[in-house]
This record gives sequence, C-alpha cells and structure tokens, in this order.
Amino acid sequence: MAYDFSSLSKLLAPETVAVVGASANPIRIGGRPISSMLKAGFKGTILPVNPNRDEIQGLPCYKSVADLPGNPDSAIVAVPAVDVIPVIEELGKKGCGCVTLFSAGFAELGDQGRDLQVKLIETVKRYGIRLLGPNTLGAFNALNGYYGTFSSSLDSGYPIPGNIGIASQSGAYGTHLFAVARNRGLGASVLVATGNEADITVGDAIGWMAQSDEVEVICAYLEGFNEPDRLLEALELAREARKPVFVMKVGRSTLGAAAAQSHTATLTGDDAVADAVLAEYGAIRVDQTEDMLDFAYCAHQRIYPSNNTMGFITISGGGGIVASDEAETLGLSMPPMPEDAQKELKELLPISSPVNPLDATAQAINEPSLMEKFTRAALDKGGYTSICGFFTSVGGAPVLVPSVIEALKPIRQEYPDRLMVLCVVAPPDIVKQYEEAGFLVFEDGSRAVRAIHAMGIVGDNFAAAAAGKAPQQALPVVDLPKDTPDEFQSKALLAAAGIAAAPEVAAKTKEEAVSAAEEIGFPVVMKVLSPDILHKSEIGGVRLNIGSAEDVAVAYDALLDAAKTHAPKARVTGVLVAKQLDGGTECFLGVNRDPAFGPVAAFGLGGIFVEILNDVVIHRCPFDEATARKMILSIKGSPILTGARGREPVDIDALAAMLSKLSAFAAAAGPRLKSIDINPVMAMPGSGGAFMLDAVVETDTGLEGDSHGD
Amino acid sequence: MAYDFSSLSKLLAPETVAVVGASANPIRIGGRPISSMLKAGFKGTILPVNPNRDEIQGLPCYKSVADLPGNPDSAIVAVPAVDVIPVIEELGKKGCGCVTLFSAGFAELGDQGRDLQVKLIETVKRYGIRLLGPNTLGAFNALNGYYGTFSSSLDSGYPIPGNIGIASQSGAYGTHLFAVARNRGLGASVLVATGNEADITVGDAIGWMAQSDEVEVICAYLEGFNEPDRLLEALELAREARKPVFVMKVGRSTLGAAAAQSHTATLTGDDAVADAVLAEYGAIRVDQTEDMLDFAYCAHQRIYPSNNTMGFITISGGGGIVASDEAETLGLSMPPMPEDAQKELKELLPISSPVNPLDATAQAINEPSLMEKFTRAALDKGGYTSICGFFTSVGGAPVLVPSVIEALKPIRQEYPDRLMVLCVVAPPDIVKQYEEAGFLVFEDGSRAVRAIHAMGIVGDNFAAAAAGKAPQQALPVVDLPKDTPDEFQSKALLAAAGIAAAPEVAAKTKEEAVSAAEEIGFPVVMKVLSPDILHKSEIGGVRLNIGSAEDVAVAYDALLDAAKTHAPKARVTGVLVAKQLDGGTECFLGVNRDPAFGPVAAFGLGGIFVEILNDVVIHRCPFDEATARKMILSIKGSPILTGARGREPVDIDALAAMLSKLSAFAAAAGPRLKSIDINPVMAMPGSGGAFMLDAVVETDTGLEGDSHGD
Repeated sequence: MAYDFSSLSKLLAPETVAVVGASANPIRIGGRPISSMLKAGFKGTILPVNPNRDEIQGLPCYKSVADLPGNPDSAIVAVPAVDVIPVIEELGKKGCGCVTLFSAGFAELGDQGRDLQVKLIETVKRYGIRLLGPNTLGAFNALNGYYGTFSSSLDSGYPIPGNIGIASQSGAYGTHLFAVARNRGLGASVLVATGNEADITVGDAIGWMAQSDEVEVICAYLEGFNEPDRLLEALELAREARKPVFVMKVGRSTLGAAAAQSHTATLTGDDAVADAVLAEYGAIRVDQTEDMLDFAYCAHQRIYPSNNTMGFITISGGGGIVASDEAETLGLSMPPMPEDAQKELKELLPISSPVNPLDATAQAINEPSLMEKFTRAALDKGGYTSICGFFTSVGGAPVLVPSVIEALKPIRQEYPDRLMVLCVVAPPDIVKQYEEAGFLVFEDGSRAVRAIHAMGIVGDNFAAAAAGKAPQQALPVVDLPKDTPDEFQSKALLAAAGIAAAPEVAAKTKEEAVSAAEEIGFPVVMKVLSPDILHKSEIGGVRLNIGSAEDVAVAYDALLDAAKTHAPKARVTGVLVAKQLDGGTECFLGVNRDPAFGPVAAFGLGGIFVEILNDVVIHRCPFDEATARKMILSIKGSPILTGARGREPVDIDALAAMLSKLSAFAAAAGPRLKSIDINPVMAMPGSGGAFMLDAVVETDTGLEGDSHGD
Repeated sequence: MAYDFSSLSKLLAPETVAVVGASANPIRIGGRPISSMLKAGFKGTILPVNPNRDEIQGLPCYKSVADLPGNPDSAIVAVPAVDVIPVIEELGKKGCGCVTLFSAGFAELGDQGRDLQVKLIETVKRYGIRLLGPNTLGAFNALNGYYGTFSSSLDSGYPIPGNIGIASQSGAYGTHLFAVARNRGLGASVLVATGNEADITVGDAIGWMAQSDEVEVICAYLEGFNEPDRLLEALELAREARKPVFVMKVGRSTLGAAAAQSHTATLTGDDAVADAVLAEYGAIRVDQTEDMLDFAYCAHQRIYPSNNTMGFITISGGGGIVASDEAETLGLSMPPMPEDAQKELKELLPISSPVNPLDATAQAINEPSLMEKFTRAALDKGGYTSICGFFTSVGGAPVLVPSVIEALKPIRQEYPDRLMVLCVVAPPDIVKQYEEAGFLVFEDGSRAVRAIHAMGIVGDNFAAAAAGKAPQQALPVVDLPKDTPDEFQSKALLAAAGIAAAPEVAAKTKEEAVSAAEEIGFPVVMKVLSPDILHKSEIGGVRLNIGSAEDVAVAYDALLDAAKTHAPKARVTGVLVAKQLDGGTECFLGVNRDPAFGPVAAFGLGGIFVEILNDVVIHRCPFDEATARKMILSIKGSPILTGARGREPVDIDALAAMLSKLSAFAAAAGPRLKSIDINPVMAMPGSGGAFMLDAVVETDTGLEGDSHGD
C-alpha cells in the first residue's frame, strides 16, 4: 500500500526531455513532440537524439543517449522495436527517470511481442525507470507546455488551460475525448494515454492527478483492469482529495468485450463487478462521452452538493415538465417550495406556478427581473442546493441578455456554495458571457438535469468518505481443506465463520440417522453426503418432509440406493439429517472469484429472481453489515423480504449479518477459494434468523480435469 | 373517420391574413406577426385591423373586420378575451376560414375561463371556422413566409428551409425545439403551437403535415391526449406517407404529471398506455429534445432501413467498443463481416481488426484511402444497411478533410439506399462539407448509434404497415347486465366470447354442489358466489383441494358461514364448484378503461411478477392473436412460460387466443365496461389449454358509492 504516484512527475513535469529517434520532420512520429513543445513554449529543455543529425528543428542534436549532457528527467523513445531495449539500457545508465515508448511491436502483437515486452519490463525495473507504453500515443501537460505525444489532434488546436485531466488506456479515444473537450471550450490540460500498460497504468495516472495541484477533475477511459490494487488506491486518493473521477469502463456488452479484446488484448471482466467496485470507490461510471464531458464541465467549478435538491426555474411549462420527468427517473429530489414562499410569488405574478418547477411563464420575457426574483426565492426560501434556470431562446436573445445577466450575477456571488445552471439557446459568445458571470450553461434541459444529479452523487460520495470508513472488517481464520469439501464440511467451514445452518447431524449409519432425527425434531430433511455429488436433487439425493423414525429409515436406504444408481463412482460419506424449516423465504448467497478484484459476494432471492430476472446485487469482499443491509434492500424483489402483499417481513438483520460474515470468510480464505454457493438460505419471518440449508464451497485443488462427479 | 386535415391549409398557407388587434409596434403581440411576415416576405396579403389607425407598419389598416375587403383565408386575433367572441362573429360573417387566437383568459384560468371557451367553441363551430388556440403562440410556415406567431425566438433568426415540421401543445417548448433545431442547422420550416386546443390539436397538425408536400419529418410535443381518435388517424396517415413522427409525450413521472396539470390543465394519462398506443401507431417516443432532434436530423434524408444492420468503421479501437456497447444495449444488430472479406482487409492492413467494428487503426491517418476501402468493404461485402465511420479529430483535421471527402463521396452516390453517418470532431464549416457530400455527421459516437437505431425502427414500422394491416378483428356481441355481474355471470359473459373456464357449476343448494362435484371429478375448488364480494379469499370464501362428496358438504356450509360472518350485507347467490387444475402456470389477464384510448388489455404472470416487479404488457383493444403472442413473449418473466429451468412450455397458443378474445370482448362491450380481472388464468403445459379460474367484470352501474361490499 501507499503506492508512490509522485514518480509520474518526471513524465508530466520534466525539466529535461530526451527525444530518441528525433526527426526533423514535424509531422513524423519522432518529430511531432519536438515541434509541439517548441510551438507551445515548453518550459524545460528538449534534447533530440539522432545519430545522423547535428541539429533538429533548430535544437542541437546528440548522436546517442550516451552523448547526452547530464541525466534527463524523461525520454521519449520512437525507434523500431528491436532497438528499444538497448536504448532503454543506455537511458538507465544515464539515470533517466521515465520513458515514454511510442514504439509498437510488443504485447499487442501476441506471443512474440509478449516476450519482448517481458524483457522490456525487466530492463526498466532494473534501472528504476517508470515506463509509459509501449504502443502509447504519449502524454501531455499543457500547464508547462510538455507535449510528449505524436497525436495529430493538436493540429486543430492546443488544449485550453483548465483543471480537467484525462487518463486513457486508448490513445485514440483519449485524444478524441481531449478534442471534443477542447472544441466545447473545456480546459483539459493533462492527458496520459497508457497504451500497453507495461508499467504505468490508468490507475497511476489517476493517482498522480489525485495528488497534483493542477488537476481537480479526472476523466478516465478503461477497457480492463490492469494492476487493480493500484487503481483502487488511486481512486481512494482522489476521493480523499475531493476530486471526482468519471470513468468510461467500456466493453460492457458481449460485442464490446470482443472488440476490446481484439483492440488491446484486454479482458474486460465481469461488467457487474466493474460497476460494483467503481461505485464502492466513489467513481462515477458513465456510458458515453457526452455524459463524461457534461459532468466534467459541471465539476470544474468544484461545487458538489450532498443531499442534493434541485429547484427548477422556468419560463416554459414544458421545460419544467421535461426536467421533472428526468429528475424523477434519476432520483434527483425536487421538493416543493414552502407554502408561504409560493404565496409571495403568486402575489408577485398571479399566472405563475411557483411550486417546483417554478414556472415564471413567458411573462418573464417582458420582465427579466422575474427570472431573478424566482431564482432568488428558490435559493433563499426553497433552500435548494442546486438551481437550474430554463430560459431557452429568451435567455439567448441579444436584446435581453445584458439585463438577464445583470439581474442574475449578484445571486451567483451571494450563494457561492450552490450549483447554478442555466439552460439557454444562444450562440457561443452569449454562452461565454453567462459563464463569465459564474453560471454553468447547457442548451438541453435533460442534460443539465443529469449533470446536476451527477454532482450530487459526487457530493454524497465525498461526504460519506469524509464521515470515515467502516472499521476494518475482522476476518476469521479460514483453513480450506486440501480436497473439495462435501456439503457437511462446507457448512462446517462456514459455520465456524459464524454462518448459521439449520440444526443438522451427519449420520454414518441408519441408526445414527434415526436418533439424530429424533433429537432434532420432526419434520426433517435428509440428503446424501458426498464430496463428489454437487447437485444432489438431480439424482434423487434429497428427501423432504420426513415425519417419523420409520420414514427416516426408509429414506436412508433410498438415498444410498440413489447415489449407487446415479453416481456409482461417488464417495458417499453418509447422510445428512437436518431440521426442515418451513414458512421462510428462500434466498441465495454466493461468492465468485473475480480475476482482478478477488472474491465478490452476491445476494439474491431464490429461484426465478436469480435465474430468470438476474435480480442480484454484488460487492467486493469483505464488507460490513450496514453495507450488506443496503445490498439486500437494493434488489428489485426486496419488497418480498420487507413485507409485500401482507407478508411478515423476514429477519433482514440476520441475513445482513450472514452476508457480511460470508464476505469476511471469502476474504480470509485466500486465492484457493473458487466459489461459494449457499442456496437456499432460509430467511425466517420476524426475528427468526436466517439459516443455510445447502452450501457448496469450491476450492482450487490444483488438479486438472477435476469434474467433482457433476 | 377520414377526418379532413386539409382545412389547416387556411392556417398554414393562407393567401390573405387579417390581423385583428394589429399593432404598429413590431415587438408587441399584435405587431410581431406583421413585422415578421414583412421581413420574411410573406407571399400573401396582410390585412391589419385596428380602429385607431389608417396605416400599420406600412400597410393600409382597416377600422373593423366588417371593413375588410373580401373574405380572408385566415385571421390572427390579439384582442382582450372579452372582445374575442364578437370579433369571431364578425370574422365568421366575413367567411374567414381559420382563426389563430393569441388571447389568453380562457380554459387555462379555470372555471370562469372555461365557460368563455365553451362559448368560443360554439361560435367557431357555427361559422365553420377552424380555431388555433386560444392561448397559443401561433404557427408559422417558412416556405411561404407566413409567421402567425408572436414568438421572440425569431429575433435570433428565421427558420432554415427544410422538411421538418414541429407540432407542439406548448408554445414555449415548441419554439425551444425550433430554436435548438435552427441553431443546429436543421431545417424546421413549419411550426404549429396549439395552446388550449379548443379546436385544432397536435393531432390536426400532424395530420396536415402527413398530407403536405413540404413536411417529411414530424416532431411532436404532447402533454396529454385531446381528441385521441384524430391523433391516431393522423399518425396512421403519417405512417402511410412514410413520414416518421417523433413524439415527446411528457409528464411520465408523478412530478412531471403534476407540473403538466398546473401548466395547461392537461391530464397526462397512464404513461404505459401512451407508450403502447404510440408504438402501435408506429410513432417513435423520445424522452428528450436531443434525441428528437438527432433523429429528425437523420430522418431528413428519408433513408429508413428495415431489418437494419450497422457496420462500424473506426480508426480508434475505443470508438468501436463504445459503439458496440451502445448498439447491443439498444438491440441494433452488428453482424461480423464475411470471412473472405475479413481476409482481404487483413491482407490490405495486417494490424487491422476487420470484423465489426472494422478497426482500420490509426494507420488510416497516414492513408485516408483506408477509410474508403474499409467503408466500401462494409457496404459491398458486409451488406450493412447502415454504416458509421468514426474518424474523430482525424476526420476534422483541415489538411486531411479534402482527401477524406474525395475518397468517400463516390461511395455515398453508389449506395443511395444506405444510411451513412460519420463521427468527426470538427468545426461547423468542415461538418458542412461532409453534409454537402451527403453524409450525416455526429460528433458523439453513442448519439450516432442511437440515431441509426431509430431510423431502423422507423423502417421496420413502415415495412410492417406496408405489409398490410391485420384483418379487422371480428367482435362478439356483448350484452352487459344492468347490475355488476357476480363471478359466475362474469365468467359466463367471457365464456360466451370464447374464453374458456375450467369446468364449473353454480350450485344453489348443498345437494346441487355435491352432484356437481361428482360430475366434474375430484379434486374440486369451491367458492362463495356473490356480486357484492369481490375478493373472496380475504373472507375465507374459497376452498381448495376438496376430494370427496362429504368434504363438499362440509365446505358448502363453511362458505356460507364465512360470508354471513364477514360480509353480512352481501347477497349470496350460491356456491361455485369448479375442477381444480394443478400443474399449470398462473397468469393474469385484465382490461382497464383508459380515458383517452378506451379499453386497454394487460397480460402478466401471476403474483409477484405483476404486483412487485410490475412485469406487465398492455395493448389497446382489440388486437389479433399474433399481437397477443408478441405481447406474451415480451414480458421479462416469459422464460417461465417458454420452458425455463427444465419446465415444459405452457400452451402459449391458447393464452394468445384468450388474450385476443378478451380484447375483442372489451372492445365490443362499450363504455359501460370499467374493468376486467381474470386472475388467475391457469396456462397448462404442452397443448393443455388455458383456463380462467376467477374473473371479475366491473361495470359502470351509474350508481354512486357502490363499494361492492369490498
């Protein structure tokens, strides 16, 4: 832990930059960075390296790395793949701290390139060099004029200074984001494209931005999760620094995942896990560029209201209805104005509808002061943390703009902590006037509402983080057996971690079974016990509703017969006799191992809810009971647990405790744990508890072809 | 039927327009239309009417309507509400065909205004005048320079000529749509804002546009449904004319519906019904302005591929992944390129990924001809009906644009029936160059994919309509009883319409009950029969699993007792004895009367699916079996019916027949039918049929306080 992100300063704020493979041609890959930095007035020293030149683009050129004066902070390397490692060696010997490697021909090519990438990684590690790439479009930092990139997107213009940073696995998509941002007038000053991520990942870039003075808002584009621990630490740092991270994690669809794999050989992973982990760390996941840049635009003012409420002031009833629909869909609260404030506004303008949305009607066209009065009332009397004024083309009419701005500007200054958005249909110069007066401007009302909602989520995430983390979950000691445990052993393992089973006894003989049933009390359930039979009911290995000692004896024989007939090779260790629990609600608790994020716990209702409706919630392990409770209540079918249709609510406390304990068990069990299936768990009404009725713990036995007799 | 929409030509293409309440001040409500028309070069004659002036804005002014020469096609009236009816009378006497009434002070004010509006409607009807308004912002038609509106949105610019028409209930939102469209460069030439809709509705405007030569793409904004029949006829006409209708039907949320009611006193209705009806008529419902204008922009080229497939050509792997995610979410098909075509492209550019998305990589920056070759391959070999080229800032780089356009332009001409979209990040002048070459241009890939998907839906709707309507559903003869029918009568009514019940007998004595059970065969179900008890199981009025004659006798007494105890005032007509059907799947079929669209049928699975998950599909009555089958298969829980988890599929043919027959019954029953609840229907496995087990037909008895003993 406590990963050192500051080493990226050599990449993004170098004093001396060598360019190995420098070109005199300003549009060639080895010429673009030099030309871009010269044009942008890079504050450091550029040291071109090219054996065939004495001078490049007006700068003195060095024959080799060895000839360089002093030790460059950073180097940009644009030489053929075969020449890369010797160059890196030389740079290492020179004490260079960071290399940006444009060259392709590494892991993205498949097996052969992968070997070269492994050697490359060994080399940079040996010299303590941080490596961006290979196969990267590079990085830039407009604030000091560093342009270590060959992106042609700079041909249409340099970045606008501002506090937005972009971290992207894909160079082309990263520069797409940058170009769209720049054309919208957004200040995205820092960009890091990570390419093959042999060393520096998107997580590193986020971590550096989280600690930098320059970046306040982070936009990230990810296809998969390399070095997940580093990413999570970076997200944590960003949250602590109150810097929102907007993440496009792409490849959520089957087709998108396949395209991602052919693009950068990245496995996108389980999308639901990505969703859960990003939410856990307070990152805001977005599906499209437009949302990301809308949110980043809003965020650049750094106003993040928690418990966000929106007051919507409009001169078009329609605009208010559209906004209300959008807000309610998102769950953005729009409480009504207080009664007395409504009365005052109604007196001021009898045809108005001053509830929320506050409709000042087209009368505001004749009297722009109405816009100001309604807006002020929303802030003062309504107390909304965010306001949005929908003034459409009226707010863009050149004759009206000066009086509107004059009326609204003092409000912006009086309520500095409120988020203030205006919707106007206006040419860019008029939009700029509103922005200079301190307002965020959208043309589209729905987009404005989505952005306001997102700022509230950011605010809530920051507030929750500031309120302190949940205490570290105490983990049980888990000692997984060497072989795959059978049901009884599985339950015993889980029970040792505090997960309750219905009273049950493993019987090795018919007599033991009968006396166990008598002790437990009828009716009982009986199941065949075998580590080799995972799905017992499919072979007739489960008997319900057994009401007497005689029936226990009959069932015992029947179960052993069933096993002999349907799974002749299975090792049968006995029969399980358990109390039959009736009247509860069947739930499903499980754990799966995610390749990036380790064990992930799942909760759902039994049967169709999981299998047909996919109504499941997941969370990285471990987590506390409060989190477990939130998870349980978040599923669509949760009314079944909380008392829908006149049912008695089930024991959600017990369920939450069980889910949290399961998560601790999974976290403690280590990488040999493959999965856990507790299905069903019977959640009893009232405070009757929750009990596992069946459990399968699957471990990695290191054996191939281990089919578990299934 | 066959409503006459052509009378709106007097509104939108008048030769003479009187302006009553004309003002010399070009920014006053009575001055703006004159000033706007003069500036725009209106092709007809403007006749100002004002008793105090001889001349207005350079035109001769008339003292009164009576003084007007000839009979004006149309009149714009901007006088105080109290003066309106006398003015209309005079206009009527003059033979004026259409009035645009700006004046407010009618139904939007509540009761008093409503009376005045009723008188207004009587007056226009008497003279056969078509009325736009009152309380309307007016209408315009840029194609002949008619601007019968006082909207200030024209201050920032006149419409761009084009084939988009806007029909909006809200004047302010309609002109917002117009202003946004104009600023985007979209040609929206015709706008009709209907205000209070005392006569002309959004449906009228859509109908006129459907028949006009000028409008090819219709954008509609609706808060509620006035004159629903007219709207549906207009939508039908638009579909026949292959003109897409994009509809913002707002007020879908509770808050939005409340805002709509305070805005125009419009009840928004059940949003699910709006969804179902708009889909039935092939209108495309959108939730936000941006989608509406994106779709209208695409539609203006009038290319609507049915069975749409998209080939996505990209120079950024990331762009392809984002697009694939969006397409899969929407259900837009992106089949892979044929193997041989992939091979050819791979030979052309070994680092490419020519599947779909077709990634030509950043190499296309150096060789723009690659964009052309990949695009051509997608059209020719891939055969995609739509293609999208994601060229981001590379496609916007001034040095590259001429060669990209030169390479792509011939393709546009060779494949005139394909939808072709480019995603470029470029300034407006470059975008215009692509558009002039025949390409649709988006900056954002996700928005491009959504628009391409929408054009495919339009194409499918047109293709389905062209394939011919379903034959008119034969309706049964339904004779609803005077009083609310009891369960037995309800089932008998439905059975007469072909809806099968399980074998059952209504017994009036214990002896009848026993012999009925013996005839039907055990086990049977018994229920108390009473028109006053709707929810029998809640009072213990249902007995299941009755296996013998003795048990029938016992149950008979118990049921009568239960009724006596829990519903002492209920009229008990006997006991129903029915065959108990086991092993089927419980479904719910129902009908509710929508205030705008009449009876609407609903289908869902029983229990939690309807009550907790709201997994219900609805459709306006009547509809055929094919439609019913599509409905049944569209619910989320449909795998339960089609054989999920190893079940035998249920008899969906029988369910579809029952649902269709129910819809015919409801359509035939007339307005006295309030609702029908067939719950449960037991759908049996295989071809075992589907049977109603319980049914409630609720009729309007015209009595108040009729609580049905519930």
